[in-house]
Amino acid sequence: MNGAESLLTTLTNNGIEVCFTNPGTSEMHFVAALDEVPEMRCVLCLFEGVLSGAADGYARMAGKPASTLLHLGPGLGNALANIHNAKKGFSPMVNIVGDHATYHLEYDAPLTSDIEGIAGPVSHWVHTSTSSGDIARDAAEAVRQAGVSRVATLMLPADVSWSDNPNGPEAVVEVATPPSVPVERIEEAVTALQSGANTLILLGGREVGMPHGHLADRIAQATGARVLIEVLPAKIARGEGTANIDRLAYLAELAIDSIRDIEQLILVGAADPVSFFAYPGVPSAIAPATARRMVLAGPRDDTEGALTGLAEALGAMATEPRVHALNLPDLPAGELDAAKVGMAIAHHMPENAILVDEGITCGMMVNMFTGTARYHEQLSQTGGSIGWGLPAALGAAVACPDRKVVCIEGDGSAMYTIQALWSMARENTDITVVIFSNRKYSILEMEYGRTGARDGVPGPSAASTLNIGSPDMDFVAMARGMGVQADRATTAEAFTMLFEQAMAQRGPRLIDAIVPPVF
Amino acid sequence: MNGAESLLTTLTNNGIEVCFTNPGTSEMHFVAALDEVPEMRCVLCLFEGVLSGAADGYARMAGKPASTLLHLGPGLGNALANIHNAKKGFSPMVNIVGDHATYHLEYDAPLTSDIEGIAGPVSHWVHTSTSSGDIARDAAEAVRQAGVSRVATLMLPADVSWSDNPNGPEAVVEVATPPSVPVERIEEAVTALQSGANTLILLGGREVGMPHGHLADRIAQATGARVLIEVLPAKIARGEGTANIDRLAYLAELAIDSIRDIEQLILVGAADPVSFFAYPGVPSAIAPATARRMVLAGPRDDTEGALTGLAEALGAMATEPRVHALNLPDLPAGELDAAKVGMAIAHHMPENAILVDEGITCGMMVNMFTGTARYHEQLSQTGGSIGWGLPAALGAAVACPDRKVVCIEGDGSAMYTIQALWSMARENTDITVVIFSNRKYSILEMEYGRTGARDGVPGPSAASTLNIGSPDMDFVAMARGMGVQADRATTAEAFTMLFEQAMAQRGPRLIDAIVPPVF
Repeated sequence: MNGAESLLTTLTNNGIEVCFTNPGTSEMHFVAALDEVPEMRCVLCLFEGVLSGAADGYARMAGKPASTLLHLGPGLGNALANIHNAKKGFSPMVNIVGDHATYHLEYDAPLTSDIEGIAGPVSHWVHTSTSSGDIARDAAEAVRQAGVSRVATLMLPADVSWSDNPNGPEAVVEVATPPSVPVERIEEAVTALQSGANTLILLGGREVGMPHGHLADRIAQATGARVLIEVLPAKIARGEGTANIDRLAYLAELAIDSIRDIEQLILVGAADPVSFFAYPGVPSAIAPATARRMVLAGPRDDTEGALTGLAEALGAMATEPRVHALNLPDLPAGELDAAKVGMAIAHHMPENAILVDEGITCGMMVNMFTGTARYHEQLSQTGGSIGWGLPAALGAAVACPDRKVVCIEGDGSAMYTIQALWSMARENTDITVVIFSNRKYSILEMEYGRTGARDGVPGPSAASTLNIGSPDMDFVAMARGMGVQADRATTAEAFTMLFEQAMAQRGPRLIDAIVPPVF
Repeated sequence: MNGAESLLTTLTNNGIEVCFTNPGTSEMHFVAALDEVPEMRCVLCLFEGVLSGAADGYARMAGKPASTLLHLGPGLGNALANIHNAKKGFSPMVNIVGDHATYHLEYDAPLTSDIEGIAGPVSHWVHTSTSSGDIARDAAEAVRQAGVSRVATLMLPADVSWSDNPNGPEAVVEVATPPSVPVERIEEAVTALQSGANTLILLGGREVGMPHGHLADRIAQATGARVLIEVLPAKIARGEGTANIDRLAYLAELAIDSIRDIEQLILVGAADPVSFFAYPGVPSAIAPATARRMVLAGPRDDTEGALTGLAEALGAMATEPRVHALNLPDLPAGELDAAKVGMAIAHHMPENAILVDEGITCGMMVNMFTGTARYHEQLSQTGGSIGWGLPAALGAAVACPDRKVVCIEGDGSAMYTIQALWSMARENTDITVVIFSNRKYSILEMEYGRTGARDGVPGPSAASTLNIGSPDMDFVAMARGMGVQADRATTAEAFTMLFEQAMAQRGPRLIDAIVPPVF
């Protein structure tokens, strides 16, 4: 058994059964080994940014890492932005990066680079295997390091891959589950909540599931505390039956204003909230400096267990949580806009769908209506690097082949990783992509105003860099060019009909929704 | 004048008049400053890998750097692969990477990352400006560091951008030109060449222009030395009037065999040749270990000056170089293949065209015919990271608006940075893109065989990862979707007609050439 086969077998022994890949010459023995280890499903992507985003979406839905296979430093570089997003969203990921044979590095061939240097800023753990006898053990360590919330990156030199591994594959390694919070922290939270101070409980992190919301609302009812959810948790349960809890606003000014009177902040998975960007005259921190902070559970802790412990300690478990009743918006009519798209999506999205949200400004309008739609889970952009949505939808669909995936995308963000459409078609994934074609980097136009530059009014050069409507892009043509059924909608009626159709069938579809900018 | 304006003015004062960009919120003051500094031309790209490849293509043709504007660590990550290619090709580049305001970094907002860490592996010089009073001086230093062959990366925190710079912009800085080689080296080369040893002169590096070839051939005639050009120099003059000099083969086995009897190797701009990848049983070094190496000129030296000095010392300047006469292939007929595409391109490509070659396996067939075409310059893939061709063509066209750019692209490599087509349309560049649609990562199929994996025959899983024909991609649809006129050719006659048309008109065009794999 060569190094590559022992590596692959170690991964599949440990439940890592999907590899999102775009290989090159240095990975050919890994590719060859795929035929010896049929338990590994290989999903080919045409660009590495697609596959790393897919690995993120997969991990969020599968609750375990996928592996990636990348071609040396530049392949890792192409994957970097979506690895960044995964890292910020606490997604586990096991990256395998092919490298030149160990003895070939000194020759400085064209693809030679400092791969560990590139991997470091986006990985929790980085290691280069230097012998085929070690590679299986190193792969097992990568799986252990990735656990359920970290990025592990393992370099696989070509000769380590092709040489014999006399030690064979590794067996199952123990992966740490999210740790329970100590009872003292729960007691501290009880004291804080019973102090009479104005308290905000902020939920967030890897997952804000249905139980999290129910528990938090029970605690709120028992103590009078407010509960909010951070702006962009990695995964959030929404719709019918979920607790009626708002999310903190994206805009720092609004968010600051909405919690300016709190005296205590209890964090459950969420980070102490901050403005996404700095603006002249706007504070970076969202919560008042005077508010006392306490962390009930960090993003890698067992947040549901912590909330359960807290609700039990408060005697609140019997309280009925206040939840969203199903409330579908009426079907819209007339000229299409982002809100009408949101109404149609909320109306027709089936129960248990996965909504991948990279709709940016237009996405906000969808979120206004989906809170009372049928129960679903929503994945959000955690790292701020656009070009995540289409790949994440691909990964979510690979993880959950029996669930409908709806991906809402800005036109600007879609173009970063538009190649994802091809893999959606190739894998016959059940994804409906909705592109908001407003022909602008609309959020940047808004942000330009917020930064105060030139009194908030872009001059002609600046305006030109925010305008992606010259030439107009035709997403229907692009999608069809990659094998995805696609249609355009300019009216609410047309969009509704297309979306309803898409919900009733299986397989990849794209709807190009021509809408005016929200702002 | 704020920091951003002083930065931009410093760049334009120093002849950097193009900025390839994809900005975000942290760069809004830079974007605003574009309206104050109209000397800077801003070229918007929909993905950062496009803009870094464009900056590379621009630099190769303009002989000076463009600037890029990138959005924090992930934006730099997206640009990384083509910065790698630029660095390996000795292209100068001045990257401006926006960052959070200095005081905002401690809050660890979603887009916070170790930008210097990401920049390091692909930059010769990395610096973070920390005060608006320093930014113009830092920008001037970036220009100086980039010079004519290096990558300089300067981080621009948002508050450094928006705050007042009391010192104003910097004036012109002195940029070092490629240094002349010391006369001792020329004397050493004369001695080596007159020793009677079997000698190879290998040309390469930033540029192998018409004069380089003429000079090298004069030297060859005077001394009996052989001359070759390295596999993929950054820029090479080809066609009518250029010296009749072969390039070293890409395949290590062939290259090794072709120079196995040399006793001396004189490097002029080229590196000591090595195999692109390691293969079991194949040496990494191409030249025999016994051959004596000498460097007449490094890739950053004045290679033309060095060859002139050597030719003069040998009394060879009066010798008539042996050059290619114009020899256009006949127009091909019948079912299309890569060789016929090459014949049609060689037949119709106008004088002084720029041929950007990322045709990979099919590109080899074009190169067989273009050596005796009309005089042109060819840009090659220097770093091995595919997804460079379309962006480089964009940059070359921006640098040379009066020259026809022909870009030959593999279908697999085209898909890495397909968004480049949109910028080609937006800027109304005079580029004709030829896509070789063979629906395979054809070179990987060949490489699979060379690595010896599974006796060179891919099993079904491996074969699937090398096959990009499921689903087939329609480049005509994709190109039209991005505003580029596009057509498909399945016969030699159709291709010839389309290509002749494209050569006769201005503006972006794409021809999807349906061809069988070369191997």
